[in-house]
Amino acid sequence: MTPQHDWFKILNNCKNNVEKAIKPHLKTLNEPQPDLGKGAGGDAMKPVDLAAEKAIVDTLQNYNVSFSLISEESGFEKYGNNPEECYITIDPIDGTTNLLRGLPFYASSIAVSRKPVIVEIYAALVADLYHDITYIAQENRGAYRGSEKIKTSQVSSLQEAVLGMDLNTYKVAEIAPKLTDLIQQTKHIRHYGANALELCYVANGLTDAFVDIRGKLRTTDVAAGFLIIKEAGGLITDIHKQPINVKLDPKQTIEFVASGNAKLHDTILGLVKH
Amino acid sequence: MTPQHDWFKILNNCKNNVEKAIKPHLKTLNEPQPDLGKGAGGDAMKPVDLAAEKAIVDTLQNYNVSFSLISEESGFEKYGNNPEECYITIDPIDGTTNLLRGLPFYASSIAVSRKPVIVEIYAALVADLYHDITYIAQENRGAYRGSEKIKTSQVSSLQEAVLGMDLNTYKVAEIAPKLTDLIQQTKHIRHYGANALELCYVANGLTDAFVDIRGKLRTTDVAAGFLIIKEAGGLITDIHKQPINVKLDPKQTIEFVASGNAKLHDTILGLVKH
Repeated sequence: MTPQHDWFKILNNCKNNVEKAIKPHLKTLNEPQPDLGKGAGGDAMKPVDLAAEKAIVDTLQNYNVSFSLISEESGFEKYGNNPEECYITIDPIDGTTNLLRGLPFYASSIAVSRKPVIVEIYAALVADLYHDITYIAQENRGAYRGSEKIKTSQVSSLQEAVLGMDLNTYKVAEIAPKLTDLIQQTKHIRHYGANALELCYVANGLTDAFVDIRGKLRTTDVAAGFLIIKEAGGLITDIHKQPINVKLDPKQTIEFVASGNAKLHDTILGLVKH
Repeated sequence: MTPQHDWFKILNNCKNNVEKAIKPHLKTLNEPQPDLGKGAGGDAMKPVDLAAEKAIVDTLQNYNVSFSLISEESGFEKYGNNPEECYITIDPIDGTTNLLRGLPFYASSIAVSRKPVIVEIYAALVADLYHDITYIAQENRGAYRGSEKIKTSQVSSLQEAVLGMDLNTYKVAEIAPKLTDLIQQTKHIRHYGANALELCYVANGLTDAFVDIRGKLRTTDVAAGFLIIKEAGGLITDIHKQPINVKLDPKQTIEFVASGNAKLHDTILGLVKH
């Protein structure tokens, strides 16, 4: 029989241990960090990413969790006697560049699922490590910022909305024209450089939507935010308004629009060119 | 004879009083704020903007400074017996939308000049009000973050650089094509939504450049950052590499590229289409 884990407690403990593990790396902000080759997702790995990953794995093992790890850094790994018991999809540090440059926006993202597909996630945490703010959700039990239940915004006009948008891509000449109508009608566009955290901004109503149609973002970045947004009352679909049901895999990419409410979601989808 | 003011002390005191003045407004984050009509720069004024402006004006008057105020909010005003003694260009709250939404990124910007033109600025402060970090510069005396002298970055490759870029404009269909080559070659693009503070990120080497060619940003937003970047060793010019020498006026707009070093500046200017 599958053991019942207290995921709220375990995930919070993961976060505390990540915070401890990255501290030595924050002290050497101005020294260049060695590259350790490329992570499973294709980005250069830094010691701080590996330290955070180790803190998460060690914490889960301390709680005697058996799991299959799906990591932006080390790819697939199995732990414990029954590694198919659950799947742990992590981006140990989302926004590593921000962290290394001293920009105050980076997070740790952990999702727990029954199977290695995004719709099977049942517990999730994204921790804003700079400000020590934790976003956490469990299936059918709502989303929380710390101990406070959170809801997405009801802002539905693009004149008032704050929209996150990631345009970092060598394919910008192809992507930008698809977004021109949307950008023209949106007064406030942001990109903070830590997508997992920016999804939680939508969940928390700090922003109203997040758009990433580059086909470049990995599921490891989105997994935890996916559940947190849904539990906070938001919507997340592809640009054809179809549900997202992708594999959890470090190489799997995802395109999506996440919105605080249905009216804004429809407005955005109506302006994004296919 | 013109009195010698201790601008380091006065500007820091302005910042302290702005922080106090905005506190009541932070408590009501989730309540809609009434509009008070449009400020001189054309944006809707919020009570928090006016409270911050009043805190700055009151502080200057307490120090018996005579000055002409050039404000994003209230336009031109004269104070004291000899208001041509100096010009104070302010954006009391840069990033009001971020502040009102709870996004941790907004600043107060104050520049002091001999005349109402940007090249005559001799003292400047930008305060990151959420994180209580103060960027300050005086002509020929360097730029500081708190008490620590700061320098711009020497990162010269767009593969490594973090670039701030503001694309918020209804003219995006006209502006985006001019920036496509630059975006294609830049790995990390950000927009935090508080341009004065983003200029200080360049000054402090947290980012490597900031590009705003919308023709929409006001000199009231840029004035203080202009001196801080120069004193930190950075460059700020128009897209033709010509020096910037605009009037300080709430209605005056500015287009510019600010970079940490000359090599990166040339690379960026070479990629921006005219």
